[in-house]
Amino acid sequence: MNAIQIKNVTKRYHDVTALDDVSFTFEHGKIYGFLGRNGAGKSTLINIIANRIFTDEGEVLIDDMPAKENMDVHEKIFCMSEEDLYADGIKVKDHFKWIDCFYESFDRKKAFEIAERFGLNTGKKFKQLSKGYQSIFKLTVAMALNVPYVIFDEPVLGLDANHRELFYDLLLREYENNERTIIIATHLIEEVANLIEEVVLIDKGKVLLQESVENLLETGYSVSGMANNVDAYCDGKNVIGYDELGGMKIAYVLGERFPAPQGSGVQLSAMNLQKLFVKLTEKGGN
Amino acid sequence: MNAIQIKNVTKRYHDVTALDDVSFTFEHGKIYGFLGRNGAGKSTLINIIANRIFTDEGEVLIDDMPAKENMDVHEKIFCMSEEDLYADGIKVKDHFKWIDCFYESFDRKKAFEIAERFGLNTGKKFKQLSKGYQSIFKLTVAMALNVPYVIFDEPVLGLDANHRELFYDLLLREYENNERTIIIATHLIEEVANLIEEVVLIDKGKVLLQESVENLLETGYSVSGMANNVDAYCDGKNVIGYDELGGMKIAYVLGERFPAPQGSGVQLSAMNLQKLFVKLTEKGGN
Repeated sequence: MNAIQIKNVTKRYHDVTALDDVSFTFEHGKIYGFLGRNGAGKSTLINIIANRIFTDEGEVLIDDMPAKENMDVHEKIFCMSEEDLYADGIKVKDHFKWIDCFYESFDRKKAFEIAERFGLNTGKKFKQLSKGYQSIFKLTVAMALNVPYVIFDEPVLGLDANHRELFYDLLLREYENNERTIIIATHLIEEVANLIEEVVLIDKGKVLLQESVENLLETGYSVSGMANNVDAYCDGKNVIGYDELGGMKIAYVLGERFPAPQGSGVQLSAMNLQKLFVKLTEKGGN
Repeated sequence: MNAIQIKNVTKRYHDVTALDDVSFTFEHGKIYGFLGRNGAGKSTLINIIANRIFTDEGEVLIDDMPAKENMDVHEKIFCMSEEDLYADGIKVKDHFKWIDCFYESFDRKKAFEIAERFGLNTGKKFKQLSKGYQSIFKLTVAMALNVPYVIFDEPVLGLDANHRELFYDLLLREYENNERTIIIATHLIEEVANLIEEVVLIDKGKVLLQESVENLLETGYSVSGMANNVDAYCDGKNVIGYDELGGMKIAYVLGERFPAPQGSGVQLSAMNLQKLFVKLTEKGGN
């Protein structure tokens, strides 16, 4: 089943085309990494899926129903927003109460449990929370909603390393217990590399790549050595970027990896997902 | 020379002791990682060093001069703040103009150069910038000030992976060209592990550890295997934390590493700085 289908979506702001005829599908029951640079169009698309803003062209279907102003869809999906949509002056526990009124699928008991795990003081007002705890409040709401589709937009912004580990851990347990479609938009790519199954990478309002993490890591590798040796080895290969230091060079390559011949003077190594992302989006030009 | 000396600093907010008789020194010409969990007291101490708030007890000396309300100190140090101290409605380029008036050591040309490298639109008002670009604006100001002591508080909050790489790169070049004392408070510990020379770790308002990164990584290691084998191997060692999965266990140990004896059924591996941090601050109790 096509859980979330993005069909030819275009969105413009004045003279900027934030999304340019974007089409792809989030399938049912997977954990996605929704990646892209700042300004690539991720949050715009999330806001369209969440029915917070509208497309200029194209549409979003959720379980084959149009997402736009559709109450049946509303109960199926929740999009945590990077922006602060919560009233500043209301206490966390009162926010939980309000959300409980609006969402049948909200599990208030679970929300308090998650809040406790993170040490979130539910007696505090939203504006009194630190940036990290504002993120924790928002991800708590998203995790306590028993909807089949959840989108997290920068869920770990401002969280310390312990709380990030706790979030990844809770998310994975949640996913194992209830098969859901989970979409995570994050800049901390290396940290979610073991969590996500598939990557959708958007760049400058277009889909640059949709691929399983396994395939990506299998086909991406780095070649290091003296610059002339690296250049010779990489001739004819799909080089997506370089780093240079003095006479040394590291080339980043996508494609089948053949062992370096004896005497070629180069060394092949695995490439991590974050480096792959950086090089792919650099190639697109800054 | 003791660049920045923290002497018996205590700071209380109502019934909370944010800093509890803290004493340590940032030495001249090093790059420090100033680490700690959310709420550990990092920002409080940075604000005291920056003369934005005052201690209840103790003092901060900069080049052996008291930092409190001292204009001679003012020109020696700059503390980037996690909080937004910049007027919302003023354009980035006008902020640069104002800072230029207040700080003799501000290099406005350099500020515009750095802004350009990051693609920061200097014609935008502060409040129009995304969270990532607000951080970029703040780190640009900090980098364009030619002061001997710079403190960055969460400089990469909201930055994408490419911009984080660029920041680390610029910082290292900067450090190589002008020997300065650079202090970075960040939650992205693994990313700065190669950048920083020394770690100051504070936890619940106290200094838990001050150590070179090299020593820390040399003495920290993990022991994995079946739980009973791991427990047997770790007996009498300084275990700072565990992870468990089914009958498997990973123990995190600080101390001299001896090869595991044949047949012990355990495997020893290096521990990264972030994991070390998580386990040390967990041990303190959440």
